[in-house]
Amino acid sequence: MYLRAFSLLKTEEQPTISSRQLALRLHLNPPQIRKDLSYFGAFGTRGIGYPVAATAERLRGILKLDVPQKAALVGAGRLGNAIASYPGFATFGFEIAAIFDNADSKIGQTVGKIVVEDTARIGTIRNRGIHLAILAVPAEAAQAVADKLVAAGAKGILNLSPCYLEVPRRVKVVTIDIAMELGTLPYYM
Amino acid sequence: MYLRAFSLLKTEEQPTISSRQLALRLHLNPPQIRKDLSYFGAFGTRGIGYPVAATAERLRGILKLDVPQKAALVGAGRLGNAIASYPGFATFGFEIAAIFDNADSKIGQTVGKIVVEDTARIGTIRNRGIHLAILAVPAEAAQAVADKLVAAGAKGILNLSPCYLEVPRRVKVVTIDIAMELGTLPYYM
Repeated sequence: MYLRAFSLLKTEEQPTISSRQLALRLHLNPPQIRKDLSYFGAFGTRGIGYPVAATAERLRGILKLDVPQKAALVGAGRLGNAIASYPGFATFGFEIAAIFDNADSKIGQTVGKIVVEDTARIGTIRNRGIHLAILAVPAEAAQAVADKLVAAGAKGILNLSPCYLEVPRRVKVVTIDIAMELGTLPYYM
Repeated sequence: MYLRAFSLLKTEEQPTISSRQLALRLHLNPPQIRKDLSYFGAFGTRGIGYPVAATAERLRGILKLDVPQKAALVGAGRLGNAIASYPGFATFGFEIAAIFDNADSKIGQTVGKIVVEDTARIGTIRNRGIHLAILAVPAEAAQAVADKLVAAGAKGILNLSPCYLEVPRRVKVVTIDIAMELGTLPYYM
C-alpha cells in the first residue's frame, strides 16, 4: 500500500511528502505511518517529510519488486480481458507475459498484444521465466488450473475465483473476492 | 473471510467444521481461528466443531449482511461487464440494482438483465434504496464519479480504479488494486 502511494506520488512529480499529507491520502493517522515506515528503515526529515523517489525505491527493493516480474494470466473471458488491459501492473514492475484459455474460440486470438495459448501449454511457463500466475477462470475450473500451475513451477498465484485453492505450502496464494470486499462495507453504514 | 468460508461450506452441505479443518482451508492456525470466532460469540463443540449454518447466520448478522443490499455499478466497460456477471455477490446478499456509464454507445444497452443508464442519473440512487456503489471507471474519471455518488447519498464505495478517492469521513471506501495484490507475492517467492 505504501509502495503504491509513493509510486503514485512519483508520477505526480511530488519530491517529498509529510506523514500528515500521506495520512490524508491513505485514511491513516500520521503516527501509524511514521511507525510503519520506520520498520522499513525509511525516515522522514522534520519539516520536509519523506523523499518520494528514494522511499519508493526502498519499498520496491524490500518487496522484491525491483526486478521486472512476468506473470501468466489464465482465463481470457470478460474478467481476463479486463485484467489484460489493467493499467496498474507497470507500477509494480509486472508484465503479463502469457495468456492461457481452454476454449477453441479463444486460443490463437489476440488479447492486448498477446496470443492466447491452450491451457495444455501451461507447463511451458517454467522455461519462460514465469513464476507468477493470475487465475481468472470459473470457480469450478480453478483448482485444476492451480494444480497445473503448481506442477509448472508457479510460486505465487493471484486467485480471482470465489473459491479456495489447495496448494503446497511453498506456493503463496492471494485471493481477491470482489463480493467479499463489498461485504465489508455495510458494517460501517 | 469467515463468512465466505462458512457460506461455501453451507453450499457444500457440510453440517459442522472443526477449527483444524477450517485452518487447512484458510491457511491459518486452529488457535487463531478459535480466538477470532470467540470474539463473535461463536463457540465450537469439542469433537464436533462449529455448526456451519448457525455460524454463517451469526456472522451475516454482525456484518449487517442479513438484509439484501442493493449496489450500483458505475462503468460498463470490460471490468464492469465482468463484475456484472460475477457469481459471488449472492453469497453476501448483494444485488447489482443499477448500472451507469457515460458513453452513448453503452447507455440503453443491456448488461446482464440491467439496462445501462446515463451517469447523469446517478442522483436517482438515493430514492431507489441504493447506498453502495462499485466504481469500475478509468482512474481519471473516478474522483468525479465518487463525488456524484457521495452527493447522491452513497455510504460505501468499492473502488476498483488504481487511484485514491477523497470522500467525506462518513463514506467508507475500499479499494481493490489487482496489481497491488499481485505485488505482495514476490516477497514470498
